[in-house]
Amino acid sequence: MSKKIVIVGGVAGGATAAARLRRLDEESQIILIERGEYISFANCGLPYYIGGTIEERSKLLVQTVDRMEARFNMDIRTSAEVMKINREDKQIEIKDLKTGEVYHQSYDHLILSPGAKPIVPPLPGLKESTYFTLRNIPDTDRIKAYVDEKQPKHVTVIGGGFIGLEMAENLADRGAKVTVVEKGPQVMAPIDPEMAAIVHEHLREKGVELILGDGIASVNEGDVVALESGRMLDTDMIVLSIGVQPESTLAHEAGLELGARRGIIVNEYMQTNDPSIYAIGDAIEVQDYITKEPAMVPLAWPANRQGRIVANNIYGKNEAYPGTLGTSIVKVFDYTVAATGVNEKRMKNLGWKYEAIHIHPASHAGYYPGAESLAMKMLFNPDNGKIYGAQIVGKDGVDKRIDVLATAIKGGLTVHDLPDLELAYAPPFSSAKDPVNMLGYVAENIIDGAVEITHWDEIDEKVNQGDLVLDVRDAKELDQGYIPGAINIPLHDLRHRMEELPKDKPIHVNCQVGLRGYLATKLLRLNGYDARNLDGGWKTYSVANGVKKPQMV
Amino acid sequence: MSKKIVIVGGVAGGATAAARLRRLDEESQIILIERGEYISFANCGLPYYIGGTIEERSKLLVQTVDRMEARFNMDIRTSAEVMKINREDKQIEIKDLKTGEVYHQSYDHLILSPGAKPIVPPLPGLKESTYFTLRNIPDTDRIKAYVDEKQPKHVTVIGGGFIGLEMAENLADRGAKVTVVEKGPQVMAPIDPEMAAIVHEHLREKGVELILGDGIASVNEGDVVALESGRMLDTDMIVLSIGVQPESTLAHEAGLELGARRGIIVNEYMQTNDPSIYAIGDAIEVQDYITKEPAMVPLAWPANRQGRIVANNIYGKNEAYPGTLGTSIVKVFDYTVAATGVNEKRMKNLGWKYEAIHIHPASHAGYYPGAESLAMKMLFNPDNGKIYGAQIVGKDGVDKRIDVLATAIKGGLTVHDLPDLELAYAPPFSSAKDPVNMLGYVAENIIDGAVEITHWDEIDEKVNQGDLVLDVRDAKELDQGYIPGAINIPLHDLRHRMEELPKDKPIHVNCQVGLRGYLATKLLRLNGYDARNLDGGWKTYSVANGVKKPQMV
Repeated sequence: MSKKIVIVGGVAGGATAAARLRRLDEESQIILIERGEYISFANCGLPYYIGGTIEERSKLLVQTVDRMEARFNMDIRTSAEVMKINREDKQIEIKDLKTGEVYHQSYDHLILSPGAKPIVPPLPGLKESTYFTLRNIPDTDRIKAYVDEKQPKHVTVIGGGFIGLEMAENLADRGAKVTVVEKGPQVMAPIDPEMAAIVHEHLREKGVELILGDGIASVNEGDVVALESGRMLDTDMIVLSIGVQPESTLAHEAGLELGARRGIIVNEYMQTNDPSIYAIGDAIEVQDYITKEPAMVPLAWPANRQGRIVANNIYGKNEAYPGTLGTSIVKVFDYTVAATGVNEKRMKNLGWKYEAIHIHPASHAGYYPGAESLAMKMLFNPDNGKIYGAQIVGKDGVDKRIDVLATAIKGGLTVHDLPDLELAYAPPFSSAKDPVNMLGYVAENIIDGAVEITHWDEIDEKVNQGDLVLDVRDAKELDQGYIPGAINIPLHDLRHRMEELPKDKPIHVNCQVGLRGYLATKLLRLNGYDARNLDGGWKTYSVANGVKKPQMV
Repeated sequence: MSKKIVIVGGVAGGATAAARLRRLDEESQIILIERGEYISFANCGLPYYIGGTIEERSKLLVQTVDRMEARFNMDIRTSAEVMKINREDKQIEIKDLKTGEVYHQSYDHLILSPGAKPIVPPLPGLKESTYFTLRNIPDTDRIKAYVDEKQPKHVTVIGGGFIGLEMAENLADRGAKVTVVEKGPQVMAPIDPEMAAIVHEHLREKGVELILGDGIASVNEGDVVALESGRMLDTDMIVLSIGVQPESTLAHEAGLELGARRGIIVNEYMQTNDPSIYAIGDAIEVQDYITKEPAMVPLAWPANRQGRIVANNIYGKNEAYPGTLGTSIVKVFDYTVAATGVNEKRMKNLGWKYEAIHIHPASHAGYYPGAESLAMKMLFNPDNGKIYGAQIVGKDGVDKRIDVLATAIKGGLTVHDLPDLELAYAPPFSSAKDPVNMLGYVAENIIDGAVEITHWDEIDEKVNQGDLVLDVRDAKELDQGYIPGAINIPLHDLRHRMEELPKDKPIHVNCQVGLRGYLATKLLRLNGYDARNLDGGWKTYSVANGVKKPQMV
């Protein structure tokens, strides 16, 4: 008997599930219900169409209703909203948003892929102001039309996450002066503060005004944004990008279980507490791949993967979704910012034992033109070497290294395996020791006890306690700044000037990026000194402390 | 008691071993013997200095003798050749190439890192001709001086491997007309012929003359190269890059075991049959990571890795080298060519059961500017999904995907794990389904029996046997050419024109890259047709058969 499968939501996961269902069974009846006008559009491309990088609007429409119906023999109903799920009768109530007509539709299996919607807080004056959120094609058209017509001189972006920063860049590309207001102490929550500091500097370098630790309180007449601090921003346009919330009301009203953050709860087969109803995408609560805790991860990769899995499971494949690692990436002007797994902020909250390392290798062989410095961070378990997460900020080769690390994590590799990754090397692409190999070497040295490290956020206190800082950079490099109280002996001279150093107190060694510091630390330790290397060197320390912008290696 | 360690060869593996040894022990005596004038230079950068991409010669000199001696407290002797190893006395005989003096040096541990040298066949007239090989700094200086001074109008490159193609590109960059002569039927031996065909077309597009299946026989007066076919090439410069041979004579004369191709045989700890003597780098025979067979892999990554391991093992770490996967990459004008693991040619020789697939995804979201088509091939075991190897040719994002696949192989992941790799997606970097995810999906469909495929080299024969070819591209796409005898029903129309097709004979479906063909194949099979998808579509078929240059998706 052929199955009747109804899918609620025709973008990302919903569209993927629909297409996969047809490929599994030619006989089933597939009904795709979409509240909006468009299915399967390029969500992630929307900011770039507004900014002009993507020139043709038609490119955003990945799949049209006609083509999808013809290709996959399905019944697609757009501008149709599901009002109610009647689980006992296995029926949904649908409202045709064009005619207002309400009708019923039965199902054997129901897939909920309703997505999430931008959070709009109930602030005084906001609704009356020139504010926008960005989620779909109509939002995009609205913003584009406004920018084209009004050419706003100043835009206020509220929220420094993916959408906020992409909009900041694209609106700056359109000639606007942009202010980003972020309530937290940093932009890009997936990365840690000392990594975000690099992004902060770059945003400012690109003319973006960045206001951290402040939020929107209200909007006064004439689009004057009042911040919680009392500061006023006279602006021409407000982009609200403080996050999204799952579209889970329909599910909740039908008695489906929601998690603490109102994500629909599903088992590993993407099934809700009603075995005939599945849910996928931004609306669901997933399990974090590393911590096994509930998480909300509104990203495209998980939605698509879940769409495929749910279709397979309706056809009895019993495929489990292994949880979400949360690999993410964003272009921020000339920089790429990427993360996978768990960050240090979360590690601290969890109270897990971990070690964090920072390195700054070149994106490819330094002698070949175009090499750029990568800021890389890795978190791992110092007992067994398990990799918890990684973060990378840089101008070139960031996506490659985060993908290799995400693959290593999924493959269950530990930091001990990273030096053995046989990665492709020729001068335009990498170095004979790839940056990911280097992460492995550095982590292994710590685990093996070959070197001890001091972190960027520990050293000031150590100095206050009377420890010594030894800067092994060449004298001219100190022009960039140095850690207060540091004494300078260049690595080159250390071997014959070692006796100038005391053996009775801890010495924290720093260089520019951590490599010469490591060599010096090894040298001193082998000669009986109590030396530790400053993890990430001057680069991590200085940018994290806002001392100065980081320099190229 | 401190160890006395002598290293023969100061480039790549030798230099790495020396530095690591010092970091492990401050007391040991480390003596580095190098026949040439330079240590630790940028071998892989040499062609780019000749071509002018790397402008300063000093950039090639990664480490100088003075700096290395000062930093690591070692005794470095350049222009010094080891003439003999006296294993019984643990002594070597060294000749100072500047003074001619011969002296002895004792060792506790000896590390051989002598490298390999270009093969120069004893052909009539070659030695008297204007021929060059490229291996080290003096070679580079000679070639650069010749090109600067003589500005050769025509260069003949003998051998289409890494060095050959890099030299072809860099000499073309210098304004020379280049002819590449390759004895085999294709350039770039690590990849298979249908992948190399893309490189052939690109080389020709860039004005390089490519002569395949022909070799150099002799050189006549006036630098006229006579090929084995009888063809004559009047040239101004000959670059010989037909391969390298291990510098293993010294080892052999000392009674150390060599393999069939004269590589020094070592155990997994890099130890020769004399436990006090280790060997690393291009001079040794390694075990292939996948096949476990002996292999010679003269690449930088293994040499560096082995250098580290040998130092660790001298200090009792018992670290095993897991074999060489042979991940390699080369820039060929606008293309990148990369491979990891075993290729299909080797698979056929081994007689192993395997399946091969080809896909042509875009390097990132098609709607974001700059997306380029990737030609990807993967070989795997159709029984258990084990990944044997992969090859990628394209203009963008090649290095990332080969590194992810190399990591997957090292992590023991199968094709079933590839769809679950949670790779970083934003439009400038990838698609919600990354090309590596796609490889997994395609492979899984084959293993699950969801689709059968026909390979590019099988279809002509099938047509001759009376099978049908169904081309599901849109009519206008057929202007690029099509498989003789194919009938055309665009995928869009297939659902309602299906009855035009016979149910009693095999139908091989093709589209442009294999994706629509897959959808059509699924549709036909679910409706009772005996359909198979042409793996890689028209793109793979046409380029492999030299029909026409491949088009962008």
